[in-house]
Amino acid sequence: MANVGFIGLGIMGRPMAGHLQAGGHTLFVHDLVPIPQELVDGGATVCGSGKDVAERSEIIITMVPDTPDVAAVLFGENGVAEGLSAGKIVVDMSSISPIETKGFAERINALGCEYLDAPVSGGEVGAKAGKLTIMVGGSQATFDTVKPLFDLMGANITLVGGNGDGQTTKVANQIIVALTIEAVGEALLFASKAGADPGKVRQALMGGFASSKILEIHGERMIARTFDPGFRINLHQKDLSLALSGARALGLSLPNTATAQQLFNSCAANGGSAWDHSGMVKALEMLAGHEIGQESGG
Amino acid sequence: MANVGFIGLGIMGRPMAGHLQAGGHTLFVHDLVPIPQELVDGGATVCGSGKDVAERSEIIITMVPDTPDVAAVLFGENGVAEGLSAGKIVVDMSSISPIETKGFAERINALGCEYLDAPVSGGEVGAKAGKLTIMVGGSQATFDTVKPLFDLMGANITLVGGNGDGQTTKVANQIIVALTIEAVGEALLFASKAGADPGKVRQALMGGFASSKILEIHGERMIARTFDPGFRINLHQKDLSLALSGARALGLSLPNTATAQQLFNSCAANGGSAWDHSGMVKALEMLAGHEIGQESGG
Repeated sequence: MANVGFIGLGIMGRPMAGHLQAGGHTLFVHDLVPIPQELVDGGATVCGSGKDVAERSEIIITMVPDTPDVAAVLFGENGVAEGLSAGKIVVDMSSISPIETKGFAERINALGCEYLDAPVSGGEVGAKAGKLTIMVGGSQATFDTVKPLFDLMGANITLVGGNGDGQTTKVANQIIVALTIEAVGEALLFASKAGADPGKVRQALMGGFASSKILEIHGERMIARTFDPGFRINLHQKDLSLALSGARALGLSLPNTATAQQLFNSCAANGGSAWDHSGMVKALEMLAGHEIGQESGG
Repeated sequence: MANVGFIGLGIMGRPMAGHLQAGGHTLFVHDLVPIPQELVDGGATVCGSGKDVAERSEIIITMVPDTPDVAAVLFGENGVAEGLSAGKIVVDMSSISPIETKGFAERINALGCEYLDAPVSGGEVGAKAGKLTIMVGGSQATFDTVKPLFDLMGANITLVGGNGDGQTTKVANQIIVALTIEAVGEALLFASKAGADPGKVRQALMGGFASSKILEIHGERMIARTFDPGFRINLHQKDLSLALSGARALGLSLPNTATAQQLFNSCAANGGSAWDHSGMVKALEMLAGHEIGQESGG
């Protein structure tokens, strides 16, 4: 059992830290907002700063919203870096820029410490169930050391490559998910506007080359008109921003990712920031003046 | 066993007709090019026109390249319509316009005959194996009559709805397949340019929300750099043309289908008309000046 630091105890971090505590680890926690009572009741020590967390922990996990938050937590005043000593391990489980991540890892390595980027997918449901998918970048030895902690939080855990590659994999995941939602949206909207029953079309396409988890789950949501999250559009907008700013920095053209982001922006403009990301189809529907399942003149 | 007419004995039609003959049906065949010898040897009667085929058959199947070909075969001089009498069934298994299909069905119905649109997916491999996916539009009774013939040619056979709905489903399928190929292409290219191993990224994404038949099969082709068809880009261009002309006629905006078609056009401009459709990624690679798997500065 290890002394584990955990910084960022929001919707995702809270149940993740709970699993570590239930697994017998001693927690040292910090956040800008009040610490969840069940963690305190379970014996977690509340620390006044990231520096304090880092001084008292062997492994320090961060789970915060975005790239600048990770930068502040690690390298700001009284941040984690100030409390580190050689041999400690920093594990960033936030979803942030793969490019910035490489710089963060270098700065942590320069202190004689190890760094893993380990973003997750699976959302609040996966976090609560301890069934997150965890995509890891870093060294094999460090991965092996932290693996028992990952096992408490996740079910599908892969060391993809060196630092940054975990975040890169997460961005790739979010590109595919957004663009497959868009693909299913265009196809079901075409079918509906042409006068076919979208549910029967979806059924006919399952099992062939068009089959995907998205057709199965998000396609069903588009037909049933249930857009409660699930995964919120404003979070997916953040992830596509990482893809698009990464594309600019790396020298890449991602035309359909760009369009998908514009469709998310349109949803947000129409009050849909908190819709499930399958709600992207509603932006396509606005463009068509037709909703999936609506009676068609087609 | 029925007298079955078969018009269009190309790459797809030839093995499909062969399965009907092997199933014990008597074939009456017509094409603009010479009839395959094995069908003649098997007892097929070669007819001089669509009219001749229609006079001698109870069920007339058409399997030709595009919408104008179906129009010519059915309603041209000495075409099928001239040889029909009440109670016969026309089954168009070509992949053509869903909108034109509704008009064709009405004209055939006006002669006292039934019409099914029954496009397929699965390509030459599926046709030879008798394992095509068949998406059918028409009446339940007519579907039930023709089903024994479909069973000889296909494995996954669905009556989706009324006339046109089979073709609509095929277009929806081709939209999803093209756009999922594009999605996987953008994601793996991002990963590769960012310096990650695209094979390991693909592996990490399988099983999660990004998983699809396309990630599994076409993603592997992009990484292994094998772009032999499979399904040719020039055929998928035809299918996306049906989607885009349908979108204009129906009043729909399909932004990512439009972009995918432009990427196919770019492949064709670079000698890739006969590449497998997974080769769409090569157009994205040209835009990025980087090939998946190439050493990256990222």
